[in-house]
Amino acid sequence: MRSPLERFYAVIPAGGIGSRLWPLSRADAPKFLHDLTGSGSTLLRATWDRLAPIAGDQRIMVVTGRAHRAAVEQQLPDLADLNVVLESEPRDSSAAIGLAAAILEKREPGVIIGSFAADHVIRGDRLFRAAVAQAVNAADQGYIVTIGIQPTEPAIGFGYIRSAGEMGLDGADSAMLVDSFVEKPDLDTAKQYLASGDYLWNAGMFISRADALLEEIGKQEPALLAGLLELAEVWDDPAARGPVVDRVWPGLKKIAIDYSVAEPAAEAGRMAVVPAHFDWDDVGDFASLAKLNSGGRKSDLAILGENARVLADSSSGIVVSQTGRVISLIGVQDIVVVDTPDALLVTTSANAQRVKSVVDALKISGRDDVL
Amino acid sequence: MRSPLERFYAVIPAGGIGSRLWPLSRADAPKFLHDLTGSGSTLLRATWDRLAPIAGDQRIMVVTGRAHRAAVEQQLPDLADLNVVLESEPRDSSAAIGLAAAILEKREPGVIIGSFAADHVIRGDRLFRAAVAQAVNAADQGYIVTIGIQPTEPAIGFGYIRSAGEMGLDGADSAMLVDSFVEKPDLDTAKQYLASGDYLWNAGMFISRADALLEEIGKQEPALLAGLLELAEVWDDPAARGPVVDRVWPGLKKIAIDYSVAEPAAEAGRMAVVPAHFDWDDVGDFASLAKLNSGGRKSDLAILGENARVLADSSSGIVVSQTGRVISLIGVQDIVVVDTPDALLVTTSANAQRVKSVVDALKISGRDDVL
Repeated sequence: MRSPLERFYAVIPAGGIGSRLWPLSRADAPKFLHDLTGSGSTLLRATWDRLAPIAGDQRIMVVTGRAHRAAVEQQLPDLADLNVVLESEPRDSSAAIGLAAAILEKREPGVIIGSFAADHVIRGDRLFRAAVAQAVNAADQGYIVTIGIQPTEPAIGFGYIRSAGEMGLDGADSAMLVDSFVEKPDLDTAKQYLASGDYLWNAGMFISRADALLEEIGKQEPALLAGLLELAEVWDDPAARGPVVDRVWPGLKKIAIDYSVAEPAAEAGRMAVVPAHFDWDDVGDFASLAKLNSGGRKSDLAILGENARVLADSSSGIVVSQTGRVISLIGVQDIVVVDTPDALLVTTSANAQRVKSVVDALKISGRDDVL
Repeated sequence: MRSPLERFYAVIPAGGIGSRLWPLSRADAPKFLHDLTGSGSTLLRATWDRLAPIAGDQRIMVVTGRAHRAAVEQQLPDLADLNVVLESEPRDSSAAIGLAAAILEKREPGVIIGSFAADHVIRGDRLFRAAVAQAVNAADQGYIVTIGIQPTEPAIGFGYIRSAGEMGLDGADSAMLVDSFVEKPDLDTAKQYLASGDYLWNAGMFISRADALLEEIGKQEPALLAGLLELAEVWDDPAARGPVVDRVWPGLKKIAIDYSVAEPAAEAGRMAVVPAHFDWDDVGDFASLAKLNSGGRKSDLAILGENARVLADSSSGIVVSQTGRVISLIGVQDIVVVDTPDALLVTTSANAQRVKSVVDALKISGRDDVL
């Protein structure tokens, strides 16, 4: 039998728009298609480049919306045709990752899959690879495994994982049992979490045997599992796939994998976490984007955009420039300015989470042209 | 002899760019060519419309730069050709107004001129006309006359005029002798000015007999006067004008009329002021523009721009939109956002005076394309 890592398959769900990053992120230019670090790579491409050395570029599957197919394939020229899974409409992460698991398990029984968001930022590839290797080993021993990021500050924008002691697993020395997942805390709670040393950031990475993942889904959501298996059964038969997708996919329950798999598995003692020390951020809003691009110096003005022409006088925050216009800031602190050809956002870091509400308001007021 | 008002000629110096209103105001689109109140008229046109009922449209002279000739004539189709005085380069207000005075005095000895900036905002035309009528009468009696605006608050953005008691002039009941002109005060001083009742805002309006104005200029700046008279001598001779302008104009001293005329005349007891109660603002910066367009309610967001698409959530200040882009503000207070096709400014009311420094910085850094 091949080693666990040889049986590893990476799955990249590339779905969410990233509404909190409007007007940078749009329905037709979602967050994962942007370079948010000035690296020259989109987040999707950077995710691929991080996973290819682990899984091999023939063993990475991308689950994305039909509308993004061309952009995804353009970003990932080495992505194999049979590894592009297109959703006719979004059905949340249980359906997306579960379908990938079902397809891969049918193709290759015993496969170990790891699901990694297309729109997170990670620095420290060596540490990432080491953590995935441990997670794959723990997964091979039957656990649903996540990688938890060692907190460096009392962040309130992330969910946390409470760990419950080491497990002594073969090839996964640092893996710990998960006690529970907890939602984004307030600042005092976050400080307690940090001080206790028992909590890790939930980076939404899930590694497990495909069959184990499907089994967990089936325990909570048997109808969802049945639909996924039905889809997988015909997926690789071009003639049969279409009608089944049209019939089954729209009826699948929309539920995040956190609720269908991670929390129940943790409660049942089947969830492990590998603590990791690489830099990670889900870049959930412009405050986080500002921090990411200013080296953590709050007094700095981060500037993002290839042809940015920014003239700033005693200002801090972030400017995202997509237009090449001259942008002048005078005496504005913690400001967020996002300059795109058809929409402009001006807010502050403190209000960054409220950007989503603008997107909702634009929808309601019929200004869909800029969504 | 015709009545003083029949001998009145209005002069509109249309010169300054209004750098503190960049990027709205530009070298090729100076402040006076903008509609800053949402009235549908440019400030220049509104100035014309205010003066035409007083002087008649054949008795309004505009002094402007060669580059603005077409725009000025487009705005003022009734402006007579011989009343367009073009400056080959800016030489400040003594030269501009002095040249108009010299030309008009030559054409029509005994003419009374009134100089009114092209880029101020005035509301209350009836009160304005009444004040001008009194000023013209006072001017006919030999005084250099200004119209002083009754302060409504301790403004620190304007210069003040200290009055020294009523004069009992015929046809100018409320005219008072000017004690002195004072520069923009700090807030405490402004409060004292307001409380004393002796101070008026200096709106930069000067009404006097043309010969009296030229005489004042000659007392302080004899070389300047000599140059102006030399220009006026040939002005209406198309063949002779060009060479004299080329030789004389570039050498004229650059000095504001406040220093060549108003202050010395006040010191000598030859300066009168007619207090007036109309609304007046020189719209010196975006803080003033915000106030002007929000009805004075500080909590409001003023929006300027014909096709503005602004979506604001708990924000105050001003948005100037020239692009038709969606502009979204979230939780920004006293903000100034000026959105033009090639330049964007983001600052706050408190920093409005610093906008000029950006223009200077753009010059230095060679970004003249957006000036």
